[in-house]
Amino acid sequence: MKFCSNCGTKEPVFKIPKGDNRPRFICHNCDTIHYTNPNIITGCLPIWEDKVLLCKRSIEPRLGYWNVPSGFMENGETVEDGAKREVWEEAEAKVEIIGTHALFSIPRINQVYVHFLGNLIDGQYGVGEESLETELFMEEEIPWEGIAFHSSIFTLKRFFDDRKNGTRKVHIGGYLQ
Amino acid sequence: MKFCSNCGTKEPVFKIPKGDNRPRFICHNCDTIHYTNPNIITGCLPIWEDKVLLCKRSIEPRLGYWNVPSGFMENGETVEDGAKREVWEEAEAKVEIIGTHALFSIPRINQVYVHFLGNLIDGQYGVGEESLETELFMEEEIPWEGIAFHSSIFTLKRFFDDRKNGTRKVHIGGYLQ
Repeated sequence: MKFCSNCGTKEPVFKIPKGDNRPRFICHNCDTIHYTNPNIITGCLPIWEDKVLLCKRSIEPRLGYWNVPSGFMENGETVEDGAKREVWEEAEAKVEIIGTHALFSIPRINQVYVHFLGNLIDGQYGVGEESLETELFMEEEIPWEGIAFHSSIFTLKRFFDDRKNGTRKVHIGGYLQ
Repeated sequence: MKFCSNCGTKEPVFKIPKGDNRPRFICHNCDTIHYTNPNIITGCLPIWEDKVLLCKRSIEPRLGYWNVPSGFMENGETVEDGAKREVWEEAEAKVEIIGTHALFSIPRINQVYVHFLGNLIDGQYGVGEESLETELFMEEEIPWEGIAFHSSIFTLKRFFDDRKNGTRKVHIGGYLQ
């Protein structure tokens, strides 16, 4: 942060506010404390029969890699509505949410993935603007070397494990490097 | 947002960036797009025998009301470590996380609560700086009229329902008014 977004003063100071226990940007003119907090990436793994729907990314980062439909949660929506929106934007598909599947934190970049499982309605899907292609995969067809993010590998592996074991859990994980 | 935090120019414009589908603050001088996204409130319901631990808030909002130990997730931590930190800060207690319990969205104020269940280690607790008092409650002792937030009522009611029914689920909810 180079300027205070409240009064425009240059170079807010990075220090611990009174009564707090960690440093924040504080404006030395108007005293505004500028908090920054982690972002939620919300998404859903669409399931159709014995297959799951993945999207090949048309945008950076990881352009050309496959991903569980996911994206930044937006203001004014619920986390589950955000997941449905992302499935629509990336795969022109509708899902009925089955339940929560994974909470995956990446502290280094201040992100938390919330991944749901969803039934793909009518097996219908297309290719959204942020995708190069979309495809239904059986477990043995998953292009593991071409998956975009650790969060997606986590979600996919746990999903197939649960299916094999006849369990359904909410998995807590993270990428801590 | 009154000033661009990147270059200090007054009055970023609130409009839809090229290729986007919703308005953001954009600086008309340096073209920085200022995204704002929902915050995570992370917390944990500490369980000890047939009781749960609540904290009476010593800070606004809802000073004097009882709450499931929760607070803003901070940069650089996982969502579950944030929950443990909040339990420590508010109740000087340590918990072993049992699992995820509730995802509760409040779109009007751009918040998502993530509530875990946790075993209160050794039944030990104190009173943290953000609390006036802390107390273990049986279900019939819960001061329902004095609970701070909808998210806490949701988490408590679902917890007692699950316990009664012998189930354990992750509950998706929200306050949509």
